[in-house]
Amino acid sequence: MTTSLLTDHYELTMVQAALAAGTANRRSVFELFPRRLPEGRRYGVVAGVGRALEALKDFRFDESDVEFLARTGVVDDATATWLADYRFTGDIQGYPEGEVYFPGAPLMVVEGSFAEAVILETLLLSIYNHDSAIASAASRMTLMAQGRPCAEMGSRRTQEEAAVAAARAAWIAGFDATSNLAAGQRWGIPTMGTAAHSFTLLHDSEEEAFGAQLASLGTDTTLLVDTYDVTEAVKTAVELTDGKLGGVRLDSGDLLTVAREVRDLLDDLGATETRITVTNDLDEWQIAALSGSPVDSYGVGTNLVTGSGHPTCGFVYKLVSREDSNDPSIQVPVAKRSRNKVSIGGRKFALRRLDQRGVAQAEVIGVGNPPRGDWNDRPLMVDLVRDGEIVGTEPIADARERHLRARRELPPSARRMSRGEPAVPTIYLEADGEEFDPLAE
Amino acid sequence: MTTSLLTDHYELTMVQAALAAGTANRRSVFELFPRRLPEGRRYGVVAGVGRALEALKDFRFDESDVEFLARTGVVDDATATWLADYRFTGDIQGYPEGEVYFPGAPLMVVEGSFAEAVILETLLLSIYNHDSAIASAASRMTLMAQGRPCAEMGSRRTQEEAAVAAARAAWIAGFDATSNLAAGQRWGIPTMGTAAHSFTLLHDSEEEAFGAQLASLGTDTTLLVDTYDVTEAVKTAVELTDGKLGGVRLDSGDLLTVAREVRDLLDDLGATETRITVTNDLDEWQIAALSGSPVDSYGVGTNLVTGSGHPTCGFVYKLVSREDSNDPSIQVPVAKRSRNKVSIGGRKFALRRLDQRGVAQAEVIGVGNPPRGDWNDRPLMVDLVRDGEIVGTEPIADARERHLRARRELPPSARRMSRGEPAVPTIYLEADGEEFDPLAE
Repeated sequence: MTTSLLTDHYELTMVQAALAAGTANRRSVFELFPRRLPEGRRYGVVAGVGRALEALKDFRFDESDVEFLARTGVVDDATATWLADYRFTGDIQGYPEGEVYFPGAPLMVVEGSFAEAVILETLLLSIYNHDSAIASAASRMTLMAQGRPCAEMGSRRTQEEAAVAAARAAWIAGFDATSNLAAGQRWGIPTMGTAAHSFTLLHDSEEEAFGAQLASLGTDTTLLVDTYDVTEAVKTAVELTDGKLGGVRLDSGDLLTVAREVRDLLDDLGATETRITVTNDLDEWQIAALSGSPVDSYGVGTNLVTGSGHPTCGFVYKLVSREDSNDPSIQVPVAKRSRNKVSIGGRKFALRRLDQRGVAQAEVIGVGNPPRGDWNDRPLMVDLVRDGEIVGTEPIADARERHLRARRELPPSARRMSRGEPAVPTIYLEADGEEFDPLAE
Repeated sequence: MTTSLLTDHYELTMVQAALAAGTANRRSVFELFPRRLPEGRRYGVVAGVGRALEALKDFRFDESDVEFLARTGVVDDATATWLADYRFTGDIQGYPEGEVYFPGAPLMVVEGSFAEAVILETLLLSIYNHDSAIASAASRMTLMAQGRPCAEMGSRRTQEEAAVAAARAAWIAGFDATSNLAAGQRWGIPTMGTAAHSFTLLHDSEEEAFGAQLASLGTDTTLLVDTYDVTEAVKTAVELTDGKLGGVRLDSGDLLTVAREVRDLLDDLGATETRITVTNDLDEWQIAALSGSPVDSYGVGTNLVTGSGHPTCGFVYKLVSREDSNDPSIQVPVAKRSRNKVSIGGRKFALRRLDQRGVAQAEVIGVGNPPRGDWNDRPLMVDLVRDGEIVGTEPIADARERHLRARRELPPSARRMSRGEPAVPTIYLEADGEEFDPLAE
């Protein structure tokens, strides 16, 4: 399976025209960055890095790809030949996976010939825009859960392959498990789940259904108790397990009220160790609202896999620099002329400026060399690809730990669920170290 | 590649528990249906049928799948053995692809043993929920475009495989082309695209960039004219082509104003045949607002692939009927006890009731036999799978035609962009033919 056709048609027509014009090999720098955070959000989470590196490995045009492109006239023969030999040979630096980000962050800096770098645009954006949208929503949910475990269970509410990617992004952002089996198979993420209402309805009574589940999955299983009457179901469940039931799941009703009632009932019946999981249309606000309720874990579906109101990040991929047409040793910063849009020519660095206690104060982004001096600046970018060789691969557990670490570094305003400004401002530095406002240009 | 692990963990634990309890083989009927339309929408569009049938073909558990499930303890040995032999052997009926739908519509009715039917839940929902969300948004856009061609170009704003599915769904709902090459390769959808701003920035001047593109792609190409100054760019473009330029693309600014200015300029310069394409953050309202502007075609990205505010349909998959535990020849309707949720036990039929001029009046849904009498009722369901054999495969062009036909049948209220009620009401019929209100039960 190649990934090369998960790409916009115009990437290839640009390659064709540049090859013909003799400009395809101009050394170029592209940056993948957010112009802003989703409205009102305090921070974003980088996800998709590991998937992008995997996709890059398979980014080549095999015989059937080239045949399709030639047959349908997408490209001419010269371009088809060039594509058949395509391998990315350049360099990529970027924010590592799980890192948090702020407006303007150069999440990925891709350097290579124009043709080899432009052609990656669509696929890199698809992966980053989706995965980071999910991770950014997921992080707010795990933040609000305050240590209570969260499980991702939204597979049915998003495209089937997006579901696997969503499970992965959610796990990086602190979720503890997923219902998605492919995410377990491909990425080693813990999977979980027990039964749906249909299982109860298959049997003549709730008692029969619970009995069947307990016999097969053991008393530590979680029983779904809201098919008919919650109180009756809890009583039956406790009775069948002699009070040793692992958990109950509530999937409907006013969870604040019901969770309290069920906890009291379980305790009265002696099932004090039985856990309560809630799963009905949760989002970060619902989770926050349930923080005082006797809930032991959350299952989140729709609102997670659709990015809780922001299903895509709006990252863009822009040419910021390319070699001088007369002197290949010189790089010229370039940018589209835009009103109200941050487009800054030139290759960027990125630092997180911390105060003396290690709390983040600003995202410092600039062209040229990072500032020297007495700053407590943490460099944000790492090598992902060097001379075409992928060097940034890591276990996703590392991304998960990095995320929790980076989130802890943020000031308290990052925890606010109300709409507002990013938790830290972005400071743009000129090559001479002076601050500037890119929108005031 | 199998599709079987694109599935929630709990589907397999239910199979395991039902196998152990001896209830797994109870003949069962599941329905996939919407409880409602997205808030304010007038109709929905069924998409994903063809993809679901392809996915069903690959829904089997190969050695590595079974090994994963056994190793991680998702299922026990007996279930692993059952899964290794799994093939769906039942029947599926449903709305054909491209058909419009209304609340309660039994979009898919899956009949088989409990185990073989329940296990399809996640994958069928993933495909239908995603593809129908995109098609439903797309149909509103093509409706507002009033015959002007629309191109899908949102690949970069959604997960890379979701992008291919989105291109397909959009085409079924009346889009004319996509930027996504994989959608062209896999489904034969026409692809298109020419150049991005980076191509202009690669060159020393707009004239040089346009010259390179025209030399390679011909004068019928579309030039992107808003990298620097639109007026200058249009003049350059017309000059270079002697007024024979195919088209210009506008990707920024106030499109209403700019499109008019560019049309006037093109006409003044004699380029009266040059088409104008606009592509900046369009949605159905923007397209409607541009209906009086001299725009020749629309390119739609983000708002299309994210379902224009409704990225998922919220379809559910419910057990509605299963065999009597004492008499396998009898089917018992079943339903969860729900407040404020339409859950009707029993296998449904679905008809579109038309008036004498062929205009849709109602979605008629009921249990048992369809009503007889003097109605002009169009049956909505077709066979998709019979005894495990896929019989519903069709060229996607058929789905596209069906959609345009079904949409034409709707009353004028279907065209309203304001929020409101579904274009036609859903009428629920009892087995005796009496109407009833499922929420009043």
